[in-house]
Amino acid sequence: METTESKFGEYVRRIQHFQEALSLMAWDLRTGAPKNGVEARAEAIGTLSDEVFALVTSERMGEFLTDLESRFDGLDSKTAALVRECRREFDRYRKIPRDRYRAFVVLTARAESVWEEARDRDDFALFRPYLEEIVAMTREFAEYWGYEKEPYDALLDPYEPGVRTADIDPLFAELKAETVRLVEAIADSGHRPNAAALIRPVTRETQREVCRWALETIGYDFSGGRLDDTAHPFQITLNPGDVRVTTRYDERDIRTALFSVLHEGGHALYEQGIDKELAGTPLYAGASLGIHESQSRFWENVVGRSRAFWQRYYGELRDRLGGGWDDVDLETFYAGINDIRPSLIRTEADEVTYNLHIFLRYDLERALVSGALAVRDLPGAWREKSRELLGIEPSRDAEGVLQDVHWASGSFGYFPTYTLGNVYAAQFREALDRDLGGLDPVLAAGDLARVRGWLRERVHRPGKQLAPLDVLARATGVDHPAAEPLVRYWRGKFVPLYRL
Amino acid sequence: METTESKFGEYVRRIQHFQEALSLMAWDLRTGAPKNGVEARAEAIGTLSDEVFALVTSERMGEFLTDLESRFDGLDSKTAALVRECRREFDRYRKIPRDRYRAFVVLTARAESVWEEARDRDDFALFRPYLEEIVAMTREFAEYWGYEKEPYDALLDPYEPGVRTADIDPLFAELKAETVRLVEAIADSGHRPNAAALIRPVTRETQREVCRWALETIGYDFSGGRLDDTAHPFQITLNPGDVRVTTRYDERDIRTALFSVLHEGGHALYEQGIDKELAGTPLYAGASLGIHESQSRFWENVVGRSRAFWQRYYGELRDRLGGGWDDVDLETFYAGINDIRPSLIRTEADEVTYNLHIFLRYDLERALVSGALAVRDLPGAWREKSRELLGIEPSRDAEGVLQDVHWASGSFGYFPTYTLGNVYAAQFREALDRDLGGLDPVLAAGDLARVRGWLRERVHRPGKQLAPLDVLARATGVDHPAAEPLVRYWRGKFVPLYRL
Repeated sequence: METTESKFGEYVRRIQHFQEALSLMAWDLRTGAPKNGVEARAEAIGTLSDEVFALVTSERMGEFLTDLESRFDGLDSKTAALVRECRREFDRYRKIPRDRYRAFVVLTARAESVWEEARDRDDFALFRPYLEEIVAMTREFAEYWGYEKEPYDALLDPYEPGVRTADIDPLFAELKAETVRLVEAIADSGHRPNAAALIRPVTRETQREVCRWALETIGYDFSGGRLDDTAHPFQITLNPGDVRVTTRYDERDIRTALFSVLHEGGHALYEQGIDKELAGTPLYAGASLGIHESQSRFWENVVGRSRAFWQRYYGELRDRLGGGWDDVDLETFYAGINDIRPSLIRTEADEVTYNLHIFLRYDLERALVSGALAVRDLPGAWREKSRELLGIEPSRDAEGVLQDVHWASGSFGYFPTYTLGNVYAAQFREALDRDLGGLDPVLAAGDLARVRGWLRERVHRPGKQLAPLDVLARATGVDHPAAEPLVRYWRGKFVPLYRL
Repeated sequence: METTESKFGEYVRRIQHFQEALSLMAWDLRTGAPKNGVEARAEAIGTLSDEVFALVTSERMGEFLTDLESRFDGLDSKTAALVRECRREFDRYRKIPRDRYRAFVVLTARAESVWEEARDRDDFALFRPYLEEIVAMTREFAEYWGYEKEPYDALLDPYEPGVRTADIDPLFAELKAETVRLVEAIADSGHRPNAAALIRPVTRETQREVCRWALETIGYDFSGGRLDDTAHPFQITLNPGDVRVTTRYDERDIRTALFSVLHEGGHALYEQGIDKELAGTPLYAGASLGIHESQSRFWENVVGRSRAFWQRYYGELRDRLGGGWDDVDLETFYAGINDIRPSLIRTEADEVTYNLHIFLRYDLERALVSGALAVRDLPGAWREKSRELLGIEPSRDAEGVLQDVHWASGSFGYFPTYTLGNVYAAQFREALDRDLGGLDPVLAAGDLARVRGWLRERVHRPGKQLAPLDVLARATGVDHPAAEPLVRYWRGKFVPLYRL
């Protein structure tokens, strides 16, 4: 006999099947789909997206939810979490008038291509009217969704459920003070790594092999994934057995591909580690953007930029680079992958100054959303903030306010999750260090399976069944993002490295 | 104001968008999708296929068709062709009871995997009950669809509209007699090409470059396509600007990749040459399987195995093979790619004996469908026919009756289109030869754009707006498949080559 639960499960699985097709179409566009087919592909994506939207917000979905919610306490925990997640999506879309949602989709699709042109031509004025409209609609949507204290909270919630500006403000203030202090101390130390020693040609073919080796080393399962070339690296999940990674290559600098693949590999380990029982549901996903980012930062930075990891693996890496690296010893390599200095572009920033880029964006986008800052004043405000936080300012908007696509996509509330990722990663690191009786010896022994096993049980397995702060509490015993572990991690690493 | 025509156009475009997703999912499965994701992928494909089936056979589609057919004479020719095509599909599926169609889909999906196992284990008995059920259902379906003379005609029609067994029988009889004569004459001639001279190692990387060069040489447009590795080469169209080719590599024998890429490239030139006005409709497709195959055979054999083509291009090929080929002159190469001799496996057969494999299958599947042959007697009948036609017989069913997937897929009526392709290709060759004032000098001059231009205008452009025999008539002036041009082509080529 078919129960409501089984029919609901089937309905939800159907949505996931369309999502798989959409994910594959997106992956394909970014890994070599021929340019002449892009326009038709965009239309096909539009058709399938409409279908997903219709299914997620249908009367049928509403009936399922009402029925299941009426006996919520009797549901098993997985079904309960599924009902909660579907309700969140349902309300999120249904609260916005359909024609306004469509207008927003069309507006942001156009804005993304205008933004690209504006960035290439260094012409903020071209992008400005679009951004003004996006900010206005974002403010309008925040009102539909509702919030307790300020509209920005309504935007943050879908990315980081349960986290509010009231949690972020003190956290970011503490981190900002510490970061500025640390960056100044490093600048004043007079020590500079010989990063130039790492700049030497490595063929794309060799780099690809190195990336495959790096992914296998951290435990990525190639029988459930693949690695491809792309312009802007990303990780994408088609289904639980198909978790893909992409990277890009700089034939003069191995660091670009290596750390991007460790980063995306960290995302992939999360996706490969989720409980397979959640397959075919939207719960087969990260708990939040911040928790997801914590996993990529963990493998990229906490592991991938540690001395302990390279004590074990630098010899293997050097062998794979095939000669020409004999003059680069472990210490030179370790220093060269930890070159801390303020720079203009977020995506190229080191693990310390990176957060300064986020504080800048967080302050500005929050002011845009509250109405305290007008879009016309944004480029000036950007330069001012940049000088204040990084000590440098862009001479061109292309290297300033126009460098990221997020606002053109209408993704307000997204940026802070990057720093939350760094914060969570350090919290996980301390808990792991405690539970394993010292992380460094485990890394130095190459016993990465123990590290992965801990993350899998504590962080990966529940997927989106748990809210991000519940995942955090479960793994660390602390139920909120805290600055101290990140500060302690930095001090432990950079005080000796830069002899501060 | 929205007219029925525009709403119909939108409805049809929507179907094409789902088809694009399905094609991409199929392409991906065959070009490196990770094995752990295959099962979930199959389910996603099932969901999207159901959606397409529902759209193609919906009440709404029925209403569109009834409305537009009521004023058919007033429709523009493109819309009229579209209505005709949609009606054909609509009737084809609606004539079969829904539960019977589903049963067939499930049966053939299972049968394909059983067939694979049966082939690997050389165990026809394992496959036999599935094939019996497939034959029974195929006979049942032929009755739903209806036919004038014999049930096989109902199966042939969707693949080759307008062509009947009554057209094929005399054609195949004539060709069979000529083929057997020619193959015997070649065997008796005492001349054998030194095919062993072509067996020498070429790295996969070099072969990939050679294949890209070959595709570019025949005029394949990479800005609207891409080339990938696969196990069983195929061409697939995602949309008019995204026409993909795949090939496979034998690192000991360049011929495998080279001729497979010319074959698939021929299919691709067809798809890239269709009128872009037909984009977003099922008319952006080949007129029939036979016409499609004529284009692949034309580039693979008529061009790709001609002396004239290699007079112009062999030097370039040899340069790209990068040394070690200096002892292989043009004549040795030309003879080596035209080694005619009976063999057991259809897909590895030369361009002459290939058709013998088709005659064998055509006779047997027709007898199965008419009821004259029982599945239990099939392996014996196969061996007998093989001895009669090819002069050899397989010692194992894996190399005989189990070698092709078609029957496991329920694709009865498909096989004869391969030989029709060879026949049409030769008819096109003669017309082209006449219109261009001699094909060989044009090939020898490397003026492939003229050849392609002729095919584009005469064959490719109309897509599926025309029936196959209308395409044939338009290009050649002859409105039926005729054996003589193929016979003349063979004599012109093989009499001198084998000094017959």
